[in-house]
Amino acid sequence: MSTQTEFVRAPNAFTERVTADGSSGWPVEPGRYRLVVSKACPWASRGLISRRLLGLEDALSVAVADPIQDERSWRFTLDPDDRDPVLGIRFLSQAYYKTDPNYTGGISVPALVDVPSGKLVSNDYPQLTIDFATEWRAYHREGAPDLYPEQLRDEIDDINQAVFTDVNNAVYQAGFAKRPEAYADAYHRLFARLDALSERLERQRFLVGDTITEADIRLFTTLVRFDAVYHNHFKCNRNKLTEMPVLWAYARDLYQTPGFYDTVDFDHIKRHYYLVHTNINPTGIVPLGPDLSGWDTPHGREQLGGRPFGDGTPPAPV
Amino acid sequence: MSTQTEFVRAPNAFTERVTADGSSGWPVEPGRYRLVVSKACPWASRGLISRRLLGLEDALSVAVADPIQDERSWRFTLDPDDRDPVLGIRFLSQAYYKTDPNYTGGISVPALVDVPSGKLVSNDYPQLTIDFATEWRAYHREGAPDLYPEQLRDEIDDINQAVFTDVNNAVYQAGFAKRPEAYADAYHRLFARLDALSERLERQRFLVGDTITEADIRLFTTLVRFDAVYHNHFKCNRNKLTEMPVLWAYARDLYQTPGFYDTVDFDHIKRHYYLVHTNINPTGIVPLGPDLSGWDTPHGREQLGGRPFGDGTPPAPV
Repeated sequence: MSTQTEFVRAPNAFTERVTADGSSGWPVEPGRYRLVVSKACPWASRGLISRRLLGLEDALSVAVADPIQDERSWRFTLDPDDRDPVLGIRFLSQAYYKTDPNYTGGISVPALVDVPSGKLVSNDYPQLTIDFATEWRAYHREGAPDLYPEQLRDEIDDINQAVFTDVNNAVYQAGFAKRPEAYADAYHRLFARLDALSERLERQRFLVGDTITEADIRLFTTLVRFDAVYHNHFKCNRNKLTEMPVLWAYARDLYQTPGFYDTVDFDHIKRHYYLVHTNINPTGIVPLGPDLSGWDTPHGREQLGGRPFGDGTPPAPV
Repeated sequence: MSTQTEFVRAPNAFTERVTADGSSGWPVEPGRYRLVVSKACPWASRGLISRRLLGLEDALSVAVADPIQDERSWRFTLDPDDRDPVLGIRFLSQAYYKTDPNYTGGISVPALVDVPSGKLVSNDYPQLTIDFATEWRAYHREGAPDLYPEQLRDEIDDINQAVFTDVNNAVYQAGFAKRPEAYADAYHRLFARLDALSERLERQRFLVGDTITEADIRLFTTLVRFDAVYHNHFKCNRNKLTEMPVLWAYARDLYQTPGFYDTVDFDHIKRHYYLVHTNINPTGIVPLGPDLSGWDTPHGREQLGGRPFGDGTPPAPV
């Protein structure tokens, strides 16, 4: 099936890495980098969760962009004087152009910015969280979990690939489809994968091994947005997450864990999707639903065993 | 709150009545009138249900318009030669103009057309079903229920008014709102009323008395469209009908009754709303969900007693 006219996610143009040994030219250093996110964005939220679970808050600061982009893309309009207080810039694009004055691609979050030079180091979200888990070890908190354990990496990578293709990205392909065939393809892949994941999670608490890993973080950021935006706005409406009992309990188990719920902002999520995508929501009305109170209800997943933080401990609540 | 720029339902311009005694100039007569409907339309579907429950099929024929209107409004493009075989017209508007050549208002279903003259008699949907129940008695089937019993009319009228304002019409006000305030007003009225109706129906099987009446028909036609279109397309998304246990069981009880399910066409419903309202669904993608299989599951409402058809009997299945 040709998808020429359909939604294709742009590659991440900036793929430098911050490394423990500094061999990349960007050594891990506390206070040196700033992680720019939108709390609306599932790709950026991975980094927020990972940073909290690992306890990197003191080593790596965060800038939160306004959930509503304008024609200049992500803005620091939530900050005093509409300016990020650390980077001193008004638009994330300024960091992009500082690195490449001729850059003409999209401006995306998450973005890792070098504070001294003001240059964008990376917007390569799949690598960012892997590096937080591995390269930034010297600055992890005591009791930090191993989110990317060596012996499980192949399995985590495999499931991440499937979840990216059929869940994380498929919801966008469904929502931005211009042809019914492209929409149907994404919709069917999405729900077939969610059914398979439900089956997998029926008898095991987490996706890989018996602890929280990178794989759970990546699935979570889509699930937490499912009923709030993807179900309606992106027409991923076979059923709600609340109607898929295993995934709904799994998502609540993670949500209720410190490091997850404290990164979630349903207001930012809903306003971003419904107000920015005028091509699919021209009225700009943000739905008042759904009722989200269910996220705090008991999930019962403890019965499956599992050790969320392995030999470690949960982060302290914010 | 001003609703100047917001959705206001146009009055029904043609309010002649067909009466048993013919005093209106339009006497009840089998085969003389044709009821033009869209199976997508909740207002027209009232008439389809009422006609089936009362057994008026032989006395009053039906024309089903294509669920997709074009700039000439409702079309008979589902019929051979794109023409209604009884009225001989291609567009419902032709019956409107036959009655009033200078008419400039909207063309709506249901429409009751006089076959011999080809003239529109009425598009006054609230009166049409009342007249089917009362003026057309001579042609009711044996065992037909009394859908508008004399001693219950005040109660039925009261609840019909509340259901019209806060349910039948409120979903449209929510969906076509241009300002967040107008949307919020409709949304809150809708769910407050649905909560009140849930409470009322918790211990009684039908809305008024212990039999199916006009009041149930009017609530049903909105409920059956709720998850299929209003939840997503009109942003009535506090929760789905399937998440409101009393109303969901009540709606299934009616749906599973002959005369209800056989008038419902989810394909017509979904295609109409999602394809015609390009102002709120510019991509024209019709969602593949929701999963509608739940409509056939046991509802358990028999436990509440009630006699759906009173001293009468259900209509034979189609």
